[in-house]
Amino acid sequence: MALDFNIEKKINGKLGRAGILKTAHGEIETPAFVVVGTKATVKSLNPDQVKEAGTQVVLANTYHLYLQPGDEIVKKNGGLGKMMNWSGPTMTDSGGFQVFSLGAAYGKGISKVLQVTDPNLLIPERFDDSTAPKLVKIGQDGVSFTSHLDGSIHYITPEKSIQIQHNLGADMIFAFDECTSPNEDLKYQGEALDRTHNWAERSLREHLKLEKEDNKFPQYLFGIVQGGRDEQLRKKSAKIISEIEVDGNKFDGFGIGGSFAKEDMSTAVKWVNEILPEEKPRHLLGIGEPEDLFMGIENGVDLFDCVLPTRLGRNGTIYTKDGKIHITNAEYRADILPIENDCDCYTCKHYTKSYIAHLFRGNEMLAGTLASIHNVHFIVNLVKKIRESIFNDNFAEFKAQFLERYSK
Amino acid sequence: MALDFNIEKKINGKLGRAGILKTAHGEIETPAFVVVGTKATVKSLNPDQVKEAGTQVVLANTYHLYLQPGDEIVKKNGGLGKMMNWSGPTMTDSGGFQVFSLGAAYGKGISKVLQVTDPNLLIPERFDDSTAPKLVKIGQDGVSFTSHLDGSIHYITPEKSIQIQHNLGADMIFAFDECTSPNEDLKYQGEALDRTHNWAERSLREHLKLEKEDNKFPQYLFGIVQGGRDEQLRKKSAKIISEIEVDGNKFDGFGIGGSFAKEDMSTAVKWVNEILPEEKPRHLLGIGEPEDLFMGIENGVDLFDCVLPTRLGRNGTIYTKDGKIHITNAEYRADILPIENDCDCYTCKHYTKSYIAHLFRGNEMLAGTLASIHNVHFIVNLVKKIRESIFNDNFAEFKAQFLERYSK
Repeated sequence: MALDFNIEKKINGKLGRAGILKTAHGEIETPAFVVVGTKATVKSLNPDQVKEAGTQVVLANTYHLYLQPGDEIVKKNGGLGKMMNWSGPTMTDSGGFQVFSLGAAYGKGISKVLQVTDPNLLIPERFDDSTAPKLVKIGQDGVSFTSHLDGSIHYITPEKSIQIQHNLGADMIFAFDECTSPNEDLKYQGEALDRTHNWAERSLREHLKLEKEDNKFPQYLFGIVQGGRDEQLRKKSAKIISEIEVDGNKFDGFGIGGSFAKEDMSTAVKWVNEILPEEKPRHLLGIGEPEDLFMGIENGVDLFDCVLPTRLGRNGTIYTKDGKIHITNAEYRADILPIENDCDCYTCKHYTKSYIAHLFRGNEMLAGTLASIHNVHFIVNLVKKIRESIFNDNFAEFKAQFLERYSK
Repeated sequence: MALDFNIEKKINGKLGRAGILKTAHGEIETPAFVVVGTKATVKSLNPDQVKEAGTQVVLANTYHLYLQPGDEIVKKNGGLGKMMNWSGPTMTDSGGFQVFSLGAAYGKGISKVLQVTDPNLLIPERFDDSTAPKLVKIGQDGVSFTSHLDGSIHYITPEKSIQIQHNLGADMIFAFDECTSPNEDLKYQGEALDRTHNWAERSLREHLKLEKEDNKFPQYLFGIVQGGRDEQLRKKSAKIISEIEVDGNKFDGFGIGGSFAKEDMSTAVKWVNEILPEEKPRHLLGIGEPEDLFMGIENGVDLFDCVLPTRLGRNGTIYTKDGKIHITNAEYRADILPIENDCDCYTCKHYTKSYIAHLFRGNEMLAGTLASIHNVHFIVNLVKKIRESIFNDNFAEFKAQFLERYSK
């Protein structure tokens, strides 16, 4: 069954659009920000709080759930959504990004600009980089790696990734890919891309096979476009991933993966979205600062996910329309106003900056919860407002207005 | 204005009773378990979760709030309840217990059996115990101590404690007392008790003075009975604290403080409650295991507070009718049943043991939240069921039945 995605309105003269995406667990109004719940929990929030903040869809990480508690246990719990008590739409990534974060990023001084999913993740040496113990080995058939939790050895192929994701049972899942470092040379980028394309086809084949065996709601498979920072490779990848077909079936949507330098991200996204079929949804993986959301939406992205709202929240860094603030700064110690006067999130409706700052100073768990609620609400609702601006034909004005104040 | 407390039913032949206590922020059905929110937050829960678990009243710690964020800032935030977004009744202790936990308990091998409020609290040498830096000095007029947070020096008198508690603005507050170690000799116990009685009268005097100046809802002052493990001292204290009178005013209720050995707690509570005026509420400070709740209620206690439900919860130790379980035991790894099938708390209605165990293994904050919700619900509702048993004239049967299964 094909994924039901309707584009309702476009940005004049741009790739950007607003639409509705239908899953067995509800509709998603796009563009949408997908909130990350790495280990089947949005850090420091319960699902009611996630929902109340305006979240439409949650993404969990295949790599983490495969290792702990194990995909069979998630399946036994009724799947990801049921296990974590989230009744709305869900997604899982493919585990491919962890190949990257466990592998190529280490020791190359690039991890900080990239989409590292979990700050606690052990980032070991890449297999061919040093004489250190080799935790990750990328082959043509798949990837072997040693668990960062208990040292056990695992082997993930495209088929295995899809089997795990069928056990996890999210509404939207991703093909297994290799996410390369932008510092790799063009030759390696090309080889990795060939692997990603080969793995994409194998992922789709396995997905179709399991779909026939499954007796549950449909899961939709997204192919992932890679190609690093190279125009030719990005365009080649978008074309190949768009066209991959198994028994008359293509991907239901697309992920745009890889690491980007801030300055060339919009170019890379544009290259790709000019080629990807217009009628299917596109997810920009791991991206989510306000300026990136405007850029991505303008260039035809429908879905985003990012850990920043909760990670920053736990560290006391809070989004406001005037930029980010750090709540433990001395100026907020006796400030009895909410974070934002005109914000209708749970945190702003009920708590003062002074109290939240006190909770952070006291290392109280509610500190991270209240800050994360506001941050998730801020980012999710920013994307909702951008969506409205598309319908109101004033995307450009809203973007200019917002970013002028935000970046001041 | 006198505290409105009505006894509605008694346990036949015992001191125990069920009643209703009225505050400006709502009624409390007694006996009741008071949930502890040390730093103006019940650890790992938000106030909605605290309320949904059945909690009627929350107690915060004067010592902690005085040091951080400071009682003036709490006052600026509208007082304890408003600041923490808890609309129901509140209490604050007097800070006296911290004199004890900062002082006499250290180095005497007794701290573990006692009501230590905060596991992170630095417990320094007592001033006369060693040549180490002296953090606490108890005098006739008050107590000087060095903040465990920043080394600043503070001096708390009974007047100061009451001034702080008026700034914090809880519905029920406590007189400043000295909580002695049970290892102190009788001579010291007697001297400390005289101090406590003198401080009680000064606390009441200051309270009445501030009450006239205040322009807000009434606060009710409870006197604290001390006397350690000695029958004569306990009875003397109960009598004196009952009778203390300033300008025709007495205490609105009573706290029973001090450390007890498990085996003689019921005796001590009985000594005291046989003397305290029947018509006023009694609070057993810092006590709260199931067996203690039955004992206290049977012997005429109306209110209890204890950090155990949330502290145990954060450590993965969970109350069940069959005793406490540790959720990360291997047997729960694939257990897709709730903690208790017949429990209607948020945690048991929505989550499996398997998922909660996964959250603990992953160090996710939701782990402590879900376990604390169940534990608070368990203890608060145990006291509610005990209350029902009083009305149903089957306290003894319910006690026997519950403890037989719980202790098996």
